[in-house]
Amino acid sequence: MGQDAEMSITTVGLDADDTLWHNETIFRLTQARFLDLLTDHDNDAIASRLAEVERRNLRLYGYGVKGFTLSMIETAMELCDGDPPPRAIREILAAGREMLAHPVETLPGVDEALAALSERYRLVLITKGDLLDQERKLAASGLGDLFAAVEIVSEKDRGTYDRVFARHGTGAEEAVMAGNSMKSDVLPALAAGAFAVHIPYVVTWAHELADAPEGHDRYGALERIAELPAWIEARADG
Amino acid sequence: MGQDAEMSITTVGLDADDTLWHNETIFRLTQARFLDLLTDHDNDAIASRLAEVERRNLRLYGYGVKGFTLSMIETAMELCDGDPPPRAIREILAAGREMLAHPVETLPGVDEALAALSERYRLVLITKGDLLDQERKLAASGLGDLFAAVEIVSEKDRGTYDRVFARHGTGAEEAVMAGNSMKSDVLPALAAGAFAVHIPYVVTWAHELADAPEGHDRYGALERIAELPAWIEARADG
Repeated sequence: MGQDAEMSITTVGLDADDTLWHNETIFRLTQARFLDLLTDHDNDAIASRLAEVERRNLRLYGYGVKGFTLSMIETAMELCDGDPPPRAIREILAAGREMLAHPVETLPGVDEALAALSERYRLVLITKGDLLDQERKLAASGLGDLFAAVEIVSEKDRGTYDRVFARHGTGAEEAVMAGNSMKSDVLPALAAGAFAVHIPYVVTWAHELADAPEGHDRYGALERIAELPAWIEARADG
Repeated sequence: MGQDAEMSITTVGLDADDTLWHNETIFRLTQARFLDLLTDHDNDAIASRLAEVERRNLRLYGYGVKGFTLSMIETAMELCDGDPPPRAIREILAAGREMLAHPVETLPGVDEALAALSERYRLVLITKGDLLDQERKLAASGLGDLFAAVEIVSEKDRGTYDRVFARHGTGAEEAVMAGNSMKSDVLPALAAGAFAVHIPYVVTWAHELADAPEGHDRYGALERIAELPAWIEARADG
């Protein structure tokens, strides 16, 4: 606490995918199915080509299932010299649609942690991804009523947190951001002046990897979201 | 005016695609290119199948270029019994990427009308489509600074206008919505209690067609956006 002892905390930002509900595991399962479609190719070669295509397309497609589906199709076309196995494209399209209709499974402890937090703080959902898909998942999660605001954004950088916590709270200084991505949830939120808590998921998309901040007194690392209310309580006097 | 003479207008909502800049013509050009790829099929048959696939996917994909691209691929697969011409899928992917990188061309009179409106009213951009793509187009249009807020939404219904005009203005009663879609911009905004102005574009996506409201004293039909400031002025005493 120390120098922050006089600060109050009014607002808690929460990431959605892999923080509140499973997501990356669904991408991984779909990717495994994709690898099986291209049996003439080595799995590692397919996976690394797909990662390359995704990275190249990120600037145009942004985040989410639709862009991932398009990148799988493009990868299949490239690896098979424009002539993939007959059923491959149809299977990829079907896999994409299934991801978009996938049941939402909240992570252990999420319901209780959010219920507790929502009694003391303004909760704001801050997530990347396809607009409609993220709205669908929030509705299906049953958590929608706990949030004072939902911000589906194209990128999570320092400016995003400045803007979102100014609009829906009392500024980043009096806010905590919690999520599974060091790169998108923790580092830019700290840069904006907020508290930030890393809560890892079992797997992390390569694109979201980054080193933890060192010696930052507004940073916390927790094992599970159930610990979040107490962590915030210990830093808030509001 | 009449019964609204004592109302003030504080906020003007503006649709983006085909209201501020060209969009549907780019979809039509891409669709024409798509028809040329499937030379074994009748153009009308392809177009109607594409419309059917788009309608079917709307619930999962929402609006925007990525969903349109996926629907073109799915249509090609269906029409060609899973075996489209070798270059078709690659050409469709390329066409989708080109749409996402297409230069933004504002419609005649837009810059002047928005500059004038922004001096007296709070301007809010309210649009459907892919999040990243709409942000890119707004940035490329050079109009971004004129807007007090930008809302990229998954659907435009009465609740959308209630929410957006409450959040960024003084409620729908004191707002005007202007756009080219009778179905998305005019009818739900009127239902929310706002003024609504239809400004047609040269072509309208079949999905956005609807009849004009009859005898509604908060409805206006203009030929071009240049007429919008005067239309609002005549209704506002604020």
